[in-house]
Amino acid sequence: MAEQPEFTVTPYEVKGRIDYARLREQFGTQEIDAPLLERLAKVTHGPVHPLLSRGIYYSHRDLEGLLAQYEKGQPFFLYSGRGPSGPLHLSHLVPFTLCQWFQEKLGVPMYIQITDDEKFWARSKLSREETVRWGYENLVDILALGFDPAKTRVFFDSRSIAALYPLAIRVARKIPYSTVKAVFGFPPSTNIGLVFYTALQTVPCFYPSWETGKAVPCLIPCGIDQDPHFRVTRDIAESLGYPKPTLIHSQMIPGLLGEEVMSTTGNEEDNALFLNDPPKTVERKLRKAFTGGRASVEEQRRLGANPEICSVWALWKTRFAETPEKFEQVTQDCRSGALLCGDCKGELIERVHTFYQHHQKAREKVAGTAEELIITQAPKPD
Amino acid sequence: MAEQPEFTVTPYEVKGRIDYARLREQFGTQEIDAPLLERLAKVTHGPVHPLLSRGIYYSHRDLEGLLAQYEKGQPFFLYSGRGPSGPLHLSHLVPFTLCQWFQEKLGVPMYIQITDDEKFWARSKLSREETVRWGYENLVDILALGFDPAKTRVFFDSRSIAALYPLAIRVARKIPYSTVKAVFGFPPSTNIGLVFYTALQTVPCFYPSWETGKAVPCLIPCGIDQDPHFRVTRDIAESLGYPKPTLIHSQMIPGLLGEEVMSTTGNEEDNALFLNDPPKTVERKLRKAFTGGRASVEEQRRLGANPEICSVWALWKTRFAETPEKFEQVTQDCRSGALLCGDCKGELIERVHTFYQHHQKAREKVAGTAEELIITQAPKPD
Repeated sequence: MAEQPEFTVTPYEVKGRIDYARLREQFGTQEIDAPLLERLAKVTHGPVHPLLSRGIYYSHRDLEGLLAQYEKGQPFFLYSGRGPSGPLHLSHLVPFTLCQWFQEKLGVPMYIQITDDEKFWARSKLSREETVRWGYENLVDILALGFDPAKTRVFFDSRSIAALYPLAIRVARKIPYSTVKAVFGFPPSTNIGLVFYTALQTVPCFYPSWETGKAVPCLIPCGIDQDPHFRVTRDIAESLGYPKPTLIHSQMIPGLLGEEVMSTTGNEEDNALFLNDPPKTVERKLRKAFTGGRASVEEQRRLGANPEICSVWALWKTRFAETPEKFEQVTQDCRSGALLCGDCKGELIERVHTFYQHHQKAREKVAGTAEELIITQAPKPD
Repeated sequence: MAEQPEFTVTPYEVKGRIDYARLREQFGTQEIDAPLLERLAKVTHGPVHPLLSRGIYYSHRDLEGLLAQYEKGQPFFLYSGRGPSGPLHLSHLVPFTLCQWFQEKLGVPMYIQITDDEKFWARSKLSREETVRWGYENLVDILALGFDPAKTRVFFDSRSIAALYPLAIRVARKIPYSTVKAVFGFPPSTNIGLVFYTALQTVPCFYPSWETGKAVPCLIPCGIDQDPHFRVTRDIAESLGYPKPTLIHSQMIPGLLGEEVMSTTGNEEDNALFLNDPPKTVERKLRKAFTGGRASVEEQRRLGANPEICSVWALWKTRFAETPEKFEQVTQDCRSGALLCGDCKGELIERVHTFYQHHQKAREKVAGTAEELIITQAPKPD
């Protein structure tokens, strides 16, 4: 019997080689399968986003229920967030890219949470100034993806606390310490801010229902590592009179150094492509990125390479192969040996440069609008 | 060897017969002794308040340091709070009465915290509506004691969170869960709101220093049961660049039914005199109150009664014997047998009625000013 691979996935730690099918089973979530993708395509009047069709979003909780309601005329809202510990890298864009697609297709509202308090609590070396500054920078990056300002609102935790706190008070009473200890694996040395935090991450799920006095369904695209937060949310939702949020979970985007996750927590900077990396840095990082290539050109021409383990192919898959045809071509040419790693990287580097230029322009356009999207007051007295 | 009495005192539980001298030793606080009272009298230009001279405030942390600074021209501010679980009873007035006296004598600012969030977290049967409503009612009762509105500011937690939160974020990172578990004796079922709460109770201690950018000393009169909160505060103050708050601790006011504490948590309503008790209720409660009297009139005339264990004498001592002479007379006549419990109660009932009438009028005067004293915005961005 093969030994089971060991891995840990929580919002605060990803360890080991992740078996995503097993993780889904461990977490008890459903698979996003072909019939569900078809239904999504029907609802959104066209092909689904590549992040869905290519299986990066692969797991869900209650998506069928949300779609059934939507099909009957009940709109939902989108919610995703960012813990601002530094500049965004490409993997951070994944949930927001999918949210922006949903908003564009369905015209639904988007709520973005910037968790500058949580990151300060989670990273003892970060200063408040840093989490706040990165919060604004990250928010502009997110908005630059094309969200409709008329349908987009922001919880910037330290700025929005007056709006968040009335609901957070009610939420926090429902969550015993023993639950967060079990769900997040917190040791006793965990600070009381982080212990409390999941209450604040729950609030946006209920906020539009609280504001309107009607049950408004919530769809949360997030990395599967964030599922524990919302499991807690789902467990308490009904007792507070709010609908359980629906989740769709993505796999983690692998790091450039062959790490399981594109993250620089405890890793080298070169493991991730940051949105503020200058062109030369992008090129250097991608040139040395881990691939599924062979030991020699000759061998690769003969046997082909392995895209499944390649950090460069993961980037094509996630964002840079815009059409199914392009993605198919890159994948087949990699497998067949027709495409060598150097050429593949060269082509990708060009596309990343183009995306970064486009993104920079989009940033400049939206930078001035960020401030007015931040919710600073509760909609009504508690 | 005599068996040591067993007791527990935390902000969330008082159990057993309290040995106050031993409690002071357990907590590691200093005694408020005669030389310190003399020094206080000198600073305040007159006799000290009866709550001090009669030993109800009996313990402190660093009061000498605070007075030394004051004598050199460095003013301090006062801070005390109330968890609004219902109407105030007489024992709740103790810290605020002393604060008002300090403010009147020294002209120092007063900060009042109304912890409507904490009470909601601490009492699972209270609704948010109740903690908010009682918060306002209690605040008006407190202000009616005669605080100067020009020198008094209020943190009403759920309303003031935008002002409290920037500092609370910094405070919370300094406090590990293991500390609050040890200090408050929280079981794992404690909700994450209550776990977080001590961070918010710490903020007012540092707020004027944060606001002004200068170290402003803080004096907190509180029941000794609240000491653990501020032990946590004192432990982290310097690492955040703020002065440690000074504490003066009162003994608990005994309940009318002979309970150790005038509290109705888990006890009968008749254990406490509420400020909103109608005159007939006041009379009924005091008539049946536990005393140190003897089994018969004859025996009491002959042997005298025991004021030390008497809940009625405790009220004379705390508030209703306005002069030293009156207090001396009640005490001596009780001990000698000259004063019988019925007569003593009759006289006290009249005084309570008078105080309640006076208090009601004072409430009406200040009710309209409460709202504008509540701090709702941080003084500056974080």
